[in-house]
Amino acid sequence: MTKPSFEIWIELASTYSHVAVHVAERAAAARGVGITWRTFLLGPIFRAQGWGDSPFNLYPVKGAYMWRDMERLCGNHGIPFRRPSQFPRNGLLAARVVTAAEGQPWLGELLRGLYRANFAEDRDIADPGCVRAVLAAAGCDAPDAVLAEAGSDRIKHQLRERTEEARRRGVFGAPSILVGDELFWGQDRIDDALTWYLSRAGQP
Amino acid sequence: MTKPSFEIWIELASTYSHVAVHVAERAAAARGVGITWRTFLLGPIFRAQGWGDSPFNLYPVKGAYMWRDMERLCGNHGIPFRRPSQFPRNGLLAARVVTAAEGQPWLGELLRGLYRANFAEDRDIADPGCVRAVLAAAGCDAPDAVLAEAGSDRIKHQLRERTEEARRRGVFGAPSILVGDELFWGQDRIDDALTWYLSRAGQP
Repeated sequence: MTKPSFEIWIELASTYSHVAVHVAERAAAARGVGITWRTFLLGPIFRAQGWGDSPFNLYPVKGAYMWRDMERLCGNHGIPFRRPSQFPRNGLLAARVVTAAEGQPWLGELLRGLYRANFAEDRDIADPGCVRAVLAAAGCDAPDAVLAEAGSDRIKHQLRERTEEARRRGVFGAPSILVGDELFWGQDRIDDALTWYLSRAGQP
Repeated sequence: MTKPSFEIWIELASTYSHVAVHVAERAAAARGVGITWRTFLLGPIFRAQGWGDSPFNLYPVKGAYMWRDMERLCGNHGIPFRRPSQFPRNGLLAARVVTAAEGQPWLGELLRGLYRANFAEDRDIADPGCVRAVLAAAGCDAPDAVLAEAGSDRIKHQLRERTEEARRRGVFGAPSILVGDELFWGQDRIDDALTWYLSRAGQP
Protein backbone atom coordinates (compact mmCIF):
# COMPACT_ATOMS: atom_id res chain seq x y z
CA MET A 1 0.00 0.00 0.00
CA THR A 2 1.33 3.42 -0.93
CA LYS A 3 1.68 5.66 2.05
CA PRO A 4 -0.34 8.89 1.59
CA SER A 5 1.30 12.17 2.44
CA PHE A 6 0.42 14.07 5.61
CA GLU A 7 -0.83 17.31 4.08
CA ILE A 8 -1.70 20.44 6.01
CA TRP A 9 -3.68 22.89 3.92
CA ILE A 10 -3.32 26.50 5.01
CA GLU A 11 -4.56 29.92 3.93
CA LEU A 12 -2.27 32.88 4.51
CA ALA A 13 -5.02 35.10 5.94
CA SER A 14 -6.34 32.45 8.36
CA THR A 15 -5.83 32.96 12.07
CA TYR A 16 -5.89 29.30 13.08
CA SER A 17 -3.33 28.54 10.36
CA HIS A 18 -0.99 30.81 12.38
CA VAL A 19 -1.26 28.30 15.21
CA ALA A 20 -0.82 25.34 12.86
CA VAL A 21 2.40 26.54 11.24
CA HIS A 22 3.87 27.09 14.70
CA VAL A 23 2.89 23.77 16.32
CA ALA A 24 2.53 21.17 13.56
CA GLU A 25 6.12 20.49 12.55
CA ARG A 26 7.18 19.66 16.09
CA ALA A 27 4.06 17.57 16.78
CA ALA A 28 4.55 15.62 13.55
CA ALA A 29 8.31 15.17 14.01
CA ALA A 30 7.71 13.78 17.51
CA ARG A 31 5.78 10.98 15.83
CA GLY A 32 8.20 10.55 12.94
CA VAL A 33 5.97 12.19 10.34
CA GLY A 34 6.98 14.80 7.79
CA ILE A 35 4.50 17.49 6.75
CA THR A 36 3.61 18.47 3.23
CA TRP A 37 2.41 22.09 3.42
CA ARG A 38 -0.25 23.03 0.88
CA THR A 39 -1.26 26.65 0.40
CA PHE A 40 -4.64 27.55 -1.07
CA LEU A 41 -7.11 30.42 -1.14
CA LEU A 42 -10.23 30.32 1.02
CA GLY A 43 -11.84 33.28 -0.77
CA PRO A 44 -13.22 31.30 -3.72
CA ILE A 45 -14.38 28.51 -1.39
CA PHE A 46 -16.14 30.97 0.93
CA ARG A 47 -17.73 32.73 -2.06
CA ALA A 48 -19.09 29.38 -3.30
CA GLN A 49 -20.87 29.13 0.09
CA GLY A 50 -22.30 32.61 -0.36
CA TRP A 51 -19.82 34.42 1.90
CA GLY A 52 -18.19 37.59 0.63
CA ASP A 53 -16.03 38.03 3.74
CA SER A 54 -14.50 35.93 6.51
CA PRO A 55 -17.23 34.17 8.53
CA PHE A 56 -15.53 35.74 11.58
CA ASN A 57 -16.55 39.14 10.22
CA LEU A 58 -19.96 38.01 8.94
CA TYR A 59 -20.80 36.45 12.33
CA PRO A 60 -19.38 38.86 14.91
CA VAL A 61 -20.21 36.63 17.89
CA LYS A 62 -18.09 33.89 16.35
CA GLY A 63 -15.43 36.44 15.53
CA ALA A 64 -15.27 37.72 19.11
CA TYR A 65 -14.80 34.13 20.28
CA MET A 66 -12.09 33.46 17.72
CA TRP A 67 -9.95 36.45 18.77
CA ARG A 68 -10.17 35.48 22.44
CA ASP A 69 -9.48 31.84 21.55
CA MET A 70 -6.41 32.88 19.55
CA GLU A 71 -5.07 34.80 22.56
CA ARG A 72 -5.51 31.74 24.76
CA LEU A 73 -4.13 29.22 22.24
CA CYS A 74 -1.10 31.30 21.37
CA GLY A 75 -0.50 31.93 25.06
CA ASN A 76 -0.66 28.19 25.79
CA HIS A 77 1.75 27.37 22.98
CA GLY A 78 4.11 30.32 23.46
CA ILE A 79 3.31 31.67 19.99
CA PRO A 80 3.60 35.44 19.48
CA PHE A 81 0.21 36.96 18.76
CA ARG A 82 -1.34 40.40 18.51
CA ARG A 83 -4.70 41.03 16.91
CA PRO A 84 -3.96 42.76 13.59
CA SER A 85 -5.49 46.11 12.75
CA GLN A 86 -6.88 44.65 9.50
CA PHE A 87 -8.60 41.27 9.08
CA PRO A 88 -8.51 39.42 6.87
CA ARG A 89 -5.47 40.74 5.06
CA ASN A 90 -5.12 40.00 1.38
CA GLY A 91 -3.02 36.83 1.34
CA LEU A 92 -2.75 36.38 -2.43
CA LEU A 93 0.83 37.59 -2.87
CA ALA A 94 2.05 35.65 0.15
CA ALA A 95 0.23 32.51 -1.02
CA ARG A 96 1.92 32.75 -4.40
CA VAL A 97 5.31 33.26 -2.77
CA VAL A 98 4.79 30.21 -0.57
CA THR A 99 3.73 28.20 -3.61
CA ALA A 100 6.90 29.29 -5.40
CA ALA A 101 8.94 28.29 -2.35
CA GLU A 102 7.68 24.69 -2.13
CA GLY A 103 10.49 22.26 -1.61
CA GLN A 104 12.86 24.86 -0.17
CA PRO A 105 14.50 23.94 3.13
CA TRP A 106 13.42 27.32 4.54
CA LEU A 107 9.72 26.86 3.68
CA GLY A 108 8.71 26.29 7.33
CA GLU A 109 10.58 29.41 8.44
CA LEU A 110 8.98 31.40 5.64
CA LEU A 111 5.51 30.27 6.71
CA ARG A 112 6.10 31.12 10.35
CA GLY A 113 7.60 34.47 9.37
CA LEU A 114 4.65 35.42 7.17
CA TYR A 115 2.10 34.46 9.82
CA ARG A 116 4.04 36.30 12.53
CA ALA A 117 4.21 39.38 10.28
CA ASN A 118 0.42 39.34 9.96
CA PHE A 119 -0.69 38.04 13.37
CA ALA A 120 2.02 39.25 15.74
CA GLU A 121 3.66 42.27 14.12
CA ASP A 122 0.64 43.79 12.34
CA ARG A 123 2.53 44.05 9.05
CA ASP A 124 0.82 43.86 5.68
CA ILE A 125 1.62 40.59 3.89
CA ALA A 126 0.12 42.06 0.71
CA ASP A 127 3.10 44.44 0.56
CA PRO A 128 6.00 43.07 -1.54
CA GLY A 129 8.49 44.87 0.72
CA CYS A 130 7.16 43.03 3.76
CA VAL A 131 7.25 39.68 1.96
CA ARG A 132 10.77 40.32 0.68
CA ALA A 133 12.00 41.04 4.21
CA VAL A 134 10.34 37.88 5.55
CA LEU A 135 11.88 35.81 2.73
CA ALA A 136 15.35 37.12 3.58
CA ALA A 137 14.88 36.53 7.31
CA ALA A 138 13.69 32.96 6.61
CA GLY A 139 16.96 32.09 4.91
CA CYS A 140 16.13 32.68 1.25
CA ASP A 141 19.21 34.15 -0.44
CA ALA A 142 17.34 35.37 -3.55
CA PRO A 143 14.09 36.99 -2.38
CA ASP A 144 13.66 39.02 -5.59
CA ALA A 145 13.90 35.90 -7.73
CA VAL A 146 11.24 34.20 -5.60
CA LEU A 147 8.99 37.26 -5.80
CA ALA A 148 9.40 37.31 -9.58
CA GLU A 149 8.62 33.60 -9.79
CA ALA A 150 5.57 34.17 -7.56
CA GLY A 151 4.21 36.53 -10.22
CA SER A 152 4.67 34.03 -13.06
CA ASP A 153 1.80 32.40 -14.90
CA ARG A 154 3.06 29.00 -13.77
CA ILE A 155 2.72 29.83 -10.08
CA LYS A 156 -0.59 31.69 -10.52
CA HIS A 157 -1.94 28.64 -12.32
CA GLN A 158 -0.56 26.26 -9.70
CA LEU A 159 -2.25 28.18 -6.85
CA ARG A 160 -5.56 28.19 -8.72
CA GLU A 161 -5.23 24.44 -9.26
CA ARG A 162 -4.44 23.91 -5.59
CA THR A 163 -7.50 25.87 -4.55
CA GLU A 164 -9.63 23.81 -6.92
CA GLU A 165 -8.07 20.61 -5.55
CA ALA A 166 -8.87 21.73 -1.98
CA ARG A 167 -12.49 22.37 -2.92
CA ARG A 168 -12.73 19.04 -4.76
CA ARG A 169 -11.36 17.15 -1.75
CA GLY A 170 -13.90 18.72 0.62
CA VAL A 171 -11.81 21.44 2.27
CA PHE A 172 -14.02 24.26 3.58
CA GLY A 173 -11.77 25.97 6.13
CA ALA A 174 -8.18 26.31 7.26
CA PRO A 175 -6.11 24.72 8.50
CA SER A 176 -7.27 21.37 7.15
CA ILE A 177 -5.35 18.13 7.22
CA LEU A 178 -5.74 15.63 4.42
CA VAL A 179 -4.52 12.05 4.65
CA GLY A 180 -5.66 10.58 1.36
CA ASP A 181 -9.44 11.08 1.36
CA GLU A 182 -9.62 11.65 5.09
CA LEU A 183 -10.19 15.26 6.13
CA PHE A 184 -9.55 16.81 9.54
CA TRP A 185 -10.49 20.45 10.11
CA GLY A 186 -8.70 22.67 12.59
CA GLN A 187 -5.34 22.98 14.26
CA ASP A 188 -6.75 21.17 17.29
CA ARG A 189 -7.16 17.99 15.23
CA ILE A 190 -3.51 17.61 14.24
CA ASP A 191 -2.95 14.84 16.81
CA ASP A 192 -6.06 12.95 15.69
CA ALA A 193 -4.87 13.22 12.10
CA LEU A 194 -1.39 11.96 13.02
CA THR A 195 -2.95 8.97 14.80
CA TRP A 196 -5.08 8.26 11.75
CA TYR A 197 -2.09 8.61 9.42
CA LEU A 198 0.11 6.27 11.45
CA SER A 199 -2.57 3.66 11.97
CA ARG A 200 -3.54 3.57 8.31
CA ALA A 201 -0.21 4.09 6.65
CA GLY A 202 2.02 2.17 9.04
CA GLN A 203 5.06 3.50 10.81
CA PRO A 204 7.59 5.19 8.56
CA MET B 1 -12.20 34.15 45.15
CA THR B 2 -15.42 32.29 44.44
CA LYS B 3 -14.87 29.24 42.31
CA PRO B 4 -16.97 29.44 39.13
CA SER B 5 -18.88 26.38 38.03
CA PHE B 6 -17.71 24.22 35.14
CA GLU B 7 -20.71 24.52 32.86
CA ILE B 8 -21.23 22.55 29.68
CA TRP B 9 -23.96 24.02 27.53
CA ILE B 10 -25.67 21.52 25.24
CA GLU B 11 -28.47 21.48 22.68
CA LEU B 12 -30.47 18.28 22.35
CA ALA B 13 -30.37 18.27 18.54
CA SER B 14 -26.61 18.87 18.32
CA THR B 15 -24.38 16.07 17.08
CA TYR B 16 -21.20 17.15 18.86
CA SER B 17 -23.17 17.42 22.12
CA HIS B 18 -23.70 13.64 21.73
CA VAL B 19 -19.94 13.24 22.04
CA ALA B 20 -19.75 15.69 24.95
CA VAL B 21 -22.35 13.97 27.13
CA HIS B 22 -20.51 10.67 26.64
CA VAL B 23 -16.96 11.85 27.35
CA ALA B 24 -17.14 14.90 29.61
CA GLU B 25 -18.14 13.41 32.97
CA ARG B 26 -15.25 10.96 32.97
CA ALA B 27 -12.75 13.56 31.73
CA ALA B 28 -13.86 16.03 34.40
CA ALA B 29 -14.01 13.45 37.19
CA ALA B 30 -10.44 12.37 36.37
CA ARG B 31 -9.38 15.91 37.26
CA GLY B 32 -11.66 16.23 40.26
CA VAL B 33 -14.17 18.54 38.61
CA GLY B 34 -17.95 18.22 38.66
CA ILE B 35 -19.96 19.30 35.63
CA THR B 36 -22.98 21.57 35.65
CA TRP B 37 -25.00 20.65 32.56
CA ARG B 38 -26.93 23.52 30.98
CA THR B 39 -29.48 22.87 28.26
CA PHE B 40 -30.46 25.58 25.80
CA LEU B 41 -31.92 25.99 22.32
CA LEU B 42 -29.68 26.81 19.37
CA GLY B 43 -32.61 27.61 17.07
CA PRO B 44 -33.14 31.20 18.31
CA ILE B 45 -29.37 31.82 18.31
CA PHE B 46 -28.99 30.49 14.76
CA ARG B 47 -31.99 32.55 13.61
CA ALA B 48 -30.37 35.69 15.07
CA GLN B 49 -27.42 34.96 12.75
CA GLY B 50 -29.77 34.61 9.80
CA TRP B 51 -29.83 30.81 9.70
CA GLY B 52 -33.19 29.06 9.42
CA ASP B 53 -31.68 25.58 9.62
CA SER B 54 -28.61 23.85 11.00
CA PRO B 55 -25.44 25.22 9.38
CA PHE B 56 -24.63 21.59 8.59
CA ASN B 57 -27.66 21.56 6.30
CA LEU B 58 -27.15 25.09 4.98
CA TYR B 59 -23.51 24.32 4.10
CA PRO B 60 -23.55 20.75 2.77
CA VAL B 61 -19.76 20.51 2.46
CA LYS B 62 -19.45 21.24 6.17
CA GLY B 63 -22.30 18.82 6.85
CA ALA B 64 -20.59 16.00 4.95
CA TYR B 65 -17.47 16.61 7.01
CA MET B 66 -19.39 16.64 10.27
CA TRP B 67 -21.05 13.25 9.64
CA ARG B 68 -17.73 11.63 8.77
CA ASP B 69 -16.09 13.33 11.76
CA MET B 70 -18.84 12.02 14.05
CA GLU B 71 -18.22 8.46 12.81
CA ARG B 72 -14.52 8.81 13.54
CA LEU B 73 -14.91 10.53 16.92
CA CYS B 74 -17.54 8.11 18.18
CA GLY B 75 -15.42 5.21 16.92
CA ASN B 76 -12.38 6.55 18.79
CA HIS B 77 -14.33 6.99 22.01
CA GLY B 78 -16.44 3.82 21.79
CA ILE B 79 -19.67 5.84 21.62
CA PRO B 80 -22.60 4.28 19.76
CA PHE B 81 -23.44 6.28 16.67
CA ARG B 82 -25.59 5.92 13.58
CA ARG B 83 -26.49 8.84 11.35
CA PRO B 84 -30.17 9.55 12.02
CA SER B 85 -32.72 9.57 9.21
CA GLN B 86 -33.79 13.10 10.23
CA PHE B 87 -31.50 16.00 11.16
CA PRO B 88 -31.88 18.09 13.10
CA ARG B 89 -34.67 16.57 15.15
CA ASN B 90 -36.90 18.88 17.14
CA GLY B 91 -35.25 18.92 20.57
CA LEU B 92 -37.70 21.22 22.36
CA LEU B 93 -39.55 18.56 24.37
CA ALA B 94 -36.32 16.80 25.32
CA ALA B 95 -34.71 20.11 26.31
CA ARG B 96 -37.65 20.92 28.59
CA VAL B 97 -37.49 17.45 30.15
CA VAL B 98 -33.77 17.84 30.82
CA THR B 99 -34.41 21.26 32.34
CA ALA B 100 -37.06 19.74 34.59
CA ALA B 101 -34.61 16.99 35.59
CA GLU B 102 -31.81 19.30 36.75
CA GLY B 103 -30.38 18.22 40.07
CA GLN B 104 -31.54 14.61 39.69
CA PRO B 105 -28.89 11.96 40.26
CA TRP B 106 -29.91 10.31 36.96
CA LEU B 107 -29.48 13.50 34.87
CA GLY B 108 -26.28 12.23 33.19
CA GLU B 109 -27.94 8.93 32.28
CA LEU B 110 -30.94 10.80 30.92
CA LEU B 111 -28.73 12.96 28.72
CA ARG B 112 -26.79 9.99 27.37
CA GLY B 113 -30.04 8.10 26.78
CA LEU B 114 -31.65 10.96 24.86
CA TYR B 115 -28.59 11.49 22.66
CA ARG B 116 -28.26 7.76 22.01
CA ALA B 117 -31.96 7.61 21.08
CA ASN B 118 -31.41 10.34 18.48
CA PHE B 119 -27.88 9.63 17.27
CA ALA B 120 -27.51 5.87 17.65
CA GLU B 121 -31.00 4.39 17.60
CA ASP B 122 -32.70 6.78 15.14
CA ARG B 123 -35.61 7.38 17.50
CA ASP B 124 -37.57 10.64 17.59
CA ILE B 125 -36.83 12.63 20.74
CA ALA B 126 -39.81 14.88 19.90
CA ASP B 127 -42.09 11.92 20.68
CA PRO B 128 -43.27 11.85 24.33
CA GLY B 129 -43.36 8.04 24.25
CA CYS B 130 -39.68 7.93 23.32
CA VAL B 131 -38.74 10.45 26.02
CA ARG B 132 -40.81 8.59 28.63
CA ALA B 133 -38.99 5.33 27.83
CA VAL B 134 -35.60 7.04 28.05
CA LEU B 135 -36.56 8.63 31.40
CA ALA B 136 -37.53 5.24 32.81
CA ALA B 137 -34.36 3.59 31.51
CA ALA B 138 -32.24 6.37 33.03
CA GLY B 139 -33.56 5.60 36.51
CA CYS B 140 -36.41 8.09 36.85
CA ASP B 141 -39.23 6.40 38.78
CA ALA B 142 -41.89 8.98 37.83
CA PRO B 143 -41.49 9.70 34.09
CA ASP B 144 -45.04 10.99 33.68
CA ALA B 145 -44.55 13.53 36.47
CA VAL B 146 -41.35 14.78 34.83
CA LEU B 147 -43.08 15.03 31.45
CA ALA B 148 -45.92 17.02 33.05
CA GLU B 149 -43.43 19.32 34.78
CA ALA B 150 -41.59 19.74 31.46
CA GLY B 151 -44.79 21.20 30.01
CA SER B 152 -45.26 23.70 32.82
CA ASP B 153 -44.91 27.45 32.38
CA ARG B 154 -42.11 27.44 34.95
CA ILE B 155 -39.93 25.09 32.89
CA LYS B 156 -40.81 26.72 29.57
CA HIS B 157 -39.80 30.06 31.04
CA GLN B 158 -36.63 28.63 32.53
CA LEU B 159 -35.51 27.18 29.18
CA ARG B 160 -36.19 30.50 27.44
CA GLU B 161 -34.15 32.28 30.12
CA ARG B 162 -31.33 29.78 29.71
CA THR B 163 -31.27 30.33 25.97
CA GLU B 164 -31.17 34.08 26.50
CA GLU B 165 -28.38 33.64 29.05
CA ALA B 166 -26.39 31.54 26.56
CA ARG B 167 -26.74 34.22 23.89
CA ARG B 168 -25.82 36.97 26.35
CA ARG B 169 -22.69 35.10 27.42
CA GLY B 170 -21.50 34.67 23.82
CA VAL B 171 -22.55 31.08 23.12
CA PHE B 172 -23.06 30.50 19.38
CA GLY B 173 -22.81 26.70 19.07
CA ALA B 174 -22.94 23.49 21.06
CA PRO B 175 -21.41 22.09 23.06
CA SER B 176 -19.91 25.15 24.69
CA ILE B 177 -18.08 25.27 27.99
CA LEU B 178 -18.36 28.34 30.20
CA VAL B 179 -16.05 28.98 33.12
CA GLY B 180 -17.19 32.35 34.34
CA ASP B 181 -16.79 34.65 31.33
CA GLU B 182 -14.45 32.28 29.55
CA LEU B 183 -15.99 30.43 26.61
CA PHE B 184 -14.69 27.27 24.95
CA TRP B 185 -16.52 25.93 21.90
CA GLY B 186 -16.58 22.27 20.98
CA GLN B 187 -16.26 18.88 22.62
CA ASP B 188 -12.59 18.82 21.62
CA ARG B 189 -11.88 21.76 23.95
CA ILE B 190 -13.06 20.09 27.17
CA ASP B 191 -9.49 19.40 28.30
CA ASP B 192 -8.41 22.98 27.59
CA ALA B 193 -11.41 24.23 29.55
CA LEU B 194 -10.60 21.92 32.49
CA THR B 195 -7.03 23.21 32.52
CA TRP B 196 -8.32 26.78 32.49
CA TYR B 197 -10.81 26.04 35.26
CA LEU B 198 -8.23 24.39 37.52
CA SER B 199 -5.58 27.05 36.96
CA ARG B 200 -7.97 29.91 37.62
CA ALA B 201 -10.16 28.45 40.32
CA GLY B 202 -7.60 26.39 42.19
CA GLN B 203 -7.79 22.70 42.95
CA PRO B 204 -11.04 21.60 44.59
